[in-house]
Amino acid sequence: VTVVAVCQLALQVGAPEANLATVTSAIRSAAADGSDIVVVPELSDSGYVFADRVEAAGLAHPAATSPALAAWQELSAQLRITVVGGWCERGNDGLLYNSAAIVGPAGVLATYRKAHLWDEEKHVFTPGDGPPPVVDTPAGRIGVCICYDLEFPEWARLAALAGADLLAAPVNWPRLDRPPGERPNEVVKAQADAAVNGMWIAVADRCGTERGVEWTGGSLIVDPGGYPVAGPVLADRPTTLLADIDLTRARDKRINANNDVMGDRRPDLYRGVTDLAVPAAGIEVPG
Amino acid sequence: VTVVAVCQLALQVGAPEANLATVTSAIRSAAADGSDIVVVPELSDSGYVFADRVEAAGLAHPAATSPALAAWQELSAQLRITVVGGWCERGNDGLLYNSAAIVGPAGVLATYRKAHLWDEEKHVFTPGDGPPPVVDTPAGRIGVCICYDLEFPEWARLAALAGADLLAAPVNWPRLDRPPGERPNEVVKAQADAAVNGMWIAVADRCGTERGVEWTGGSLIVDPGGYPVAGPVLADRPTTLLADIDLTRARDKRINANNDVMGDRRPDLYRGVTDLAVPAAGIEVPG
Repeated sequence: VTVVAVCQLALQVGAPEANLATVTSAIRSAAADGSDIVVVPELSDSGYVFADRVEAAGLAHPAATSPALAAWQELSAQLRITVVGGWCERGNDGLLYNSAAIVGPAGVLATYRKAHLWDEEKHVFTPGDGPPPVVDTPAGRIGVCICYDLEFPEWARLAALAGADLLAAPVNWPRLDRPPGERPNEVVKAQADAAVNGMWIAVADRCGTERGVEWTGGSLIVDPGGYPVAGPVLADRPTTLLADIDLTRARDKRINANNDVMGDRRPDLYRGVTDLAVPAAGIEVPG
Repeated sequence: VTVVAVCQLALQVGAPEANLATVTSAIRSAAADGSDIVVVPELSDSGYVFADRVEAAGLAHPAATSPALAAWQELSAQLRITVVGGWCERGNDGLLYNSAAIVGPAGVLATYRKAHLWDEEKHVFTPGDGPPPVVDTPAGRIGVCICYDLEFPEWARLAALAGADLLAAPVNWPRLDRPPGERPNEVVKAQADAAVNGMWIAVADRCGTERGVEWTGGSLIVDPGGYPVAGPVLADRPTTLLADIDLTRARDKRINANNDVMGDRRPDLYRGVTDLAVPAAGIEVPG
């Protein structure tokens, strides 16, 4: 059994030292409670609501010299855990990326650059061009993607096809209107991503208010059937959710004697999903 | 504004005349209440829980001579509505298909054969090899798929890429266990299918009990944001849900000044989704 933790945290843009202290404290606390894997939010070092690209650039670091990644490596080694979190990356190409890392006791296992950028991020970051990485850890096979990536089912599918038992998702879900009593559609999409792939998903969201932006506080851990085993929190408070889970449940995709959520796919019929051109308005009209 | 109706009905396997009467009555009633589009369940002529392939064969009809399709054509013409429903098809190749049709006042606009077969259906039906059809109707562009198809996000995506404003889904969702207070994951997946594609989805489910099988009764109509505008019923009773909707809302995929749920896709990065081979166990292992 693996203990997975998602840390919903209040962070502040432009306060990397305070943010690192908040994240470190949450990771230490989750590890003390027995966690094997700890997920923290998107851009957890820099904060999110940048005034402009210049401000973001001043908060960005290459993977090799990121204080956040260095801290996670030290925590991972010391606490024998795997950390997944988001950080503000300055690439060797000088461009900025909204990135995440999977860090284990032996060091950084994978880095990832968000491929689907949200709103003003398009004016700050360059989108990544690589798929969600999937790595083996002592706790199981872990993939990572970031926030809006989860809203493209092709992306979670790629992680599942690459063998992810658990897809860890650092997010910053800005609070949007929703009908009373409804879960945010971001949560619904994460649940569906888990169910259609028979895969665990762990989402660490933000809370607090940053430059007038409020967050959904929707952190949750979803099982391979699409049902939450912890959360969604849906409250504006820092909290850590823990779940004792069997990651290997994600390796059996059967749901009854005749169905297998991955084996039942018809990839030969899905080619249109990769078509680059938006289709013309030529819809079939009955004769 | 378009009025969409989904009819959740109690039907019985092997009772095609009674089923046709039930379906006809529901369609007439929905039309009398102002519906422009009426969706009825999967295999609404034959019933669902066949003893074996032979029983299904005895209840199957080619599209050209199906009493159900003939009745829907007559109702469509008479009531000036579009009907979407499932029927048990005998192909010209002699094989059985779990099929659906979109029928308008001018006749059958499209037929479709379920591509993802559920459980015992694999011993009865041949899976279809064509994508979900999308047709223009006076009420808007309508696509159709059937039940388990909705659980493959590539399928709803293809309908959206083909221009569907509304994806109509005749279903027979067998009732499965779920945690207390949770919506069935079939409902969650339908909500996500709508949200990730910015498209309306209308699901007509079964109710009642058929040879010991109970149904989810999960009929619902979902908006392009992924939120139900009617249902999910989640009760074992015949009912018709109606919603006054603006189908053309599905033609604007923007969700804020910088994001568009279809335009933000990265189809060049999705090619792995169409790979035929299940990937080997060669997961990236950190050095």
